[in-house]
Amino acid sequence: MALPVETFFLQSDASGTLQTQIRQLVAEGILAGRFRPGEKLPSSRKLALHLGVSRITVTLAFTELLADDYIIARGRSGYFVSENAPEPPAFPATSSDHSTVDWGRAIGQRFTTTQSMSKPADWATFKYPFIYGQADPTLFDSANWRLCALEALGRKDFDALTADYFDSDDPKLLDFIARQTLPRRGILAQPDEILLTMGAQNALWLTAQVLLTQRRTAAIEDPCYPALRGILEQSRCHLHAIPVDQNGLPPDSLPSETDVVFTTPSHQCPTAATMPMSRRRALLDKAEQDDFLVVEDDYEFEMSFLKPPSPALKSLDKNGRVIYVGSFSKSLFPGLRLGYLVGPAPFIREARALRASVLRHPPGHIQRTVTYFLSRGHYDALVGRMSRAFHERRTTIDAALAEHGLRVAGAGSFGGSALWMRAPEHVDTRDLAQRLAEKSVLIEPGHAFFSGPSAPLNFYRLAYSSIPTQRISNGVEILAKTLAEMS
Amino acid sequence: MALPVETFFLQSDASGTLQTQIRQLVAEGILAGRFRPGEKLPSSRKLALHLGVSRITVTLAFTELLADDYIIARGRSGYFVSENAPEPPAFPATSSDHSTVDWGRAIGQRFTTTQSMSKPADWATFKYPFIYGQADPTLFDSANWRLCALEALGRKDFDALTADYFDSDDPKLLDFIARQTLPRRGILAQPDEILLTMGAQNALWLTAQVLLTQRRTAAIEDPCYPALRGILEQSRCHLHAIPVDQNGLPPDSLPSETDVVFTTPSHQCPTAATMPMSRRRALLDKAEQDDFLVVEDDYEFEMSFLKPPSPALKSLDKNGRVIYVGSFSKSLFPGLRLGYLVGPAPFIREARALRASVLRHPPGHIQRTVTYFLSRGHYDALVGRMSRAFHERRTTIDAALAEHGLRVAGAGSFGGSALWMRAPEHVDTRDLAQRLAEKSVLIEPGHAFFSGPSAPLNFYRLAYSSIPTQRISNGVEILAKTLAEMS
Repeated sequence: MALPVETFFLQSDASGTLQTQIRQLVAEGILAGRFRPGEKLPSSRKLALHLGVSRITVTLAFTELLADDYIIARGRSGYFVSENAPEPPAFPATSSDHSTVDWGRAIGQRFTTTQSMSKPADWATFKYPFIYGQADPTLFDSANWRLCALEALGRKDFDALTADYFDSDDPKLLDFIARQTLPRRGILAQPDEILLTMGAQNALWLTAQVLLTQRRTAAIEDPCYPALRGILEQSRCHLHAIPVDQNGLPPDSLPSETDVVFTTPSHQCPTAATMPMSRRRALLDKAEQDDFLVVEDDYEFEMSFLKPPSPALKSLDKNGRVIYVGSFSKSLFPGLRLGYLVGPAPFIREARALRASVLRHPPGHIQRTVTYFLSRGHYDALVGRMSRAFHERRTTIDAALAEHGLRVAGAGSFGGSALWMRAPEHVDTRDLAQRLAEKSVLIEPGHAFFSGPSAPLNFYRLAYSSIPTQRISNGVEILAKTLAEMS
Repeated sequence: MALPVETFFLQSDASGTLQTQIRQLVAEGILAGRFRPGEKLPSSRKLALHLGVSRITVTLAFTELLADDYIIARGRSGYFVSENAPEPPAFPATSSDHSTVDWGRAIGQRFTTTQSMSKPADWATFKYPFIYGQADPTLFDSANWRLCALEALGRKDFDALTADYFDSDDPKLLDFIARQTLPRRGILAQPDEILLTMGAQNALWLTAQVLLTQRRTAAIEDPCYPALRGILEQSRCHLHAIPVDQNGLPPDSLPSETDVVFTTPSHQCPTAATMPMSRRRALLDKAEQDDFLVVEDDYEFEMSFLKPPSPALKSLDKNGRVIYVGSFSKSLFPGLRLGYLVGPAPFIREARALRASVLRHPPGHIQRTVTYFLSRGHYDALVGRMSRAFHERRTTIDAALAEHGLRVAGAGSFGGSALWMRAPEHVDTRDLAQRLAEKSVLIEPGHAFFSGPSAPLNFYRLAYSSIPTQRISNGVEILAKTLAEMS
């Protein structure tokens, strides 16, 4: 049977070259069982005419399909679906739309109870995206990233790409982090004191599992990163939320029964406060005195364009009490899902065993690509470029906020990528965000960062990591007007 | 490579003159192996600026280091770590910082207790690698994989690459799996019934967390995939190991208090038994009668070169009792870390929330690359090529084993990539493997697959997924001779 040319359609929203699309529509027809072995394809001339593409494009697509044995050529008769083409399923697909299972009972543990985070996927369509934590396409070094990724796909890296590492990591990346990345934070660590993770989220999760039980007590900052609170609530440990001040977490407020403290000393999340050296030492002294551990999430230290970053808490730790969390999510991009844990070997050993059980290891290709991007020096160049851009944006946003008299509640003294803002008491920033979204301005309400039922509603985060400098002033103006309308 | 100036830090509590401290920090970097012979030091001007000391202080410290041959000067090029510099100790020095933490107490939960799996990383250097589950570079379609990866790095896919998906998946990949992959196994599923995972390991782990508690009962096959047993032991549920026969898991042996059964009906792991249709129906009937759930790990169904694969258990499931685990580890490569879970929406919802908390999502680039590789038809072409190669290898190994009278305990009737072998009773296959390794033959001892203290020692797995066809006969001959020597 000849397959009618009318059954061939290019999808209007398809991606790839025309040649790729033609190859795909033939392959999909075969795989879905619509085109059967022995059936004759339209001639390349006919198909080209029907699809409105050049004949050579069709011929090239057919040549690829021939090579992969989807189709065969029979001299002058033309092309046919190959007898060796992959077969569609022999049995009809069924859907179990009804279920006799009582899922309310069958689910042993619930995880949907914790607040899930989300941000508009279409943020880039907003004119004034004061959004936090997404990569800026105008700053990212796509060209060199692509080169490094391609190198990591090469023949000599076949093992690094494909192998099952079980519980291990790419030794080249571990080596680079130990020798180059950590020393910049004043940290010396051996490879057995480092574990690669699926971003900081995974690092914090692994740490909580290893250190906490229902009988242990953790302390977090209030406000703090909501996903961390979710992780700790799931661990069912006793949990204290300690209000931060303009210097970050106050050690004196930590209850003496604390086992583990989670803190962001370089750049408190979300208030952007930097913990002074004296308080860092006081926190470590108290850790020693009360015998607790400190988990330091050292995010965004790279964006230090106003002054050098303070040394990491871990670099001051003489007693092996600090577990350090690093991430490439902010400096590269969050979709990478790569971070790392640094801590004493007995702790890393348990975290490594748990990671192996949960997911084995971060994909080899990701690890090797990052290794090349770091070791070729592209990473430092990128961080430099981002810092310069963020510096410019920060200067602009500071001026615009001052001009409109908007109140900054917290700002990283060394730099960073966002400001913590306080609206007038009566303003619910969830309403504010909704009103602004209608005017193409994107801000992040602060409510979710706070613990407890009496969380204030009038805070919000204003990031400058993704908004172009020249849009900042107008965006802030709209923000100020909308706030005024709400009074 | 140049050593970045940022890796040089003066310790605030260090003793000695500034000159001594600078000398010390360079020497320590060399002794710790962070600065390697041939690497370039920052210029004295740059280092002085960075450390906030006078340039002459740095120059004097460098002069001392020159005299001691830690570093050398190369005319105008500057200073380099000397090739004659003292070498760091061959074994890593323990961190100079002692720890006051009692790690035996500080670790709340231990994960190192479960048997960890590993395979020789240098398997490709063995002449006769009967190794299981690693990618064969002679079969993998690196060229098209590279093209798809490159396309996924392109400008139009910037969001798919970089964005934080939070708890979501690449919609294009979900769509392809729902429309093309699952229907071949007779399964119809909506996108909210599918979750992408970091390989089958992660899918099984998530499933165990959602469904099991200390009060629930799980049943596994005996022998079975050791990492699954590890996952279930960590969950602390009641666990029954049910001996399999030549038809896989016998439903009649399942205790009536069972809540969840983990099974590999298409291809029992590791015995390669295929569960007949009648037994599949009996298992589903029993699930309905005793109200338990079935987790189906449908690995390697793609390698069906002897006859078509049996329909998935999930395709026979009319009552929504089966949770299906799929993976690209065997058909693409294990280092990819990509698999998926298919199950009723209430279950997938919980698994998705847990995944978000543990790691957020598999990296965007991996998801999009796989989407292209699948939808362009390269995946099916690859599976076809692998199947033809495995068919040839299977024919060869079957003949070689018959010739030498070696006993096959289990073999996939539809195909597969490995045989389950039984050595004479008195042979410990861990010894056998060691003896064979010395002759460049790699086999996998079977002991770790069995539950309990009385696990038999005389089984082993013999895979043909990575060994070239022409080496199989010689490899089997060496195996047979070695076995004979052990009698």
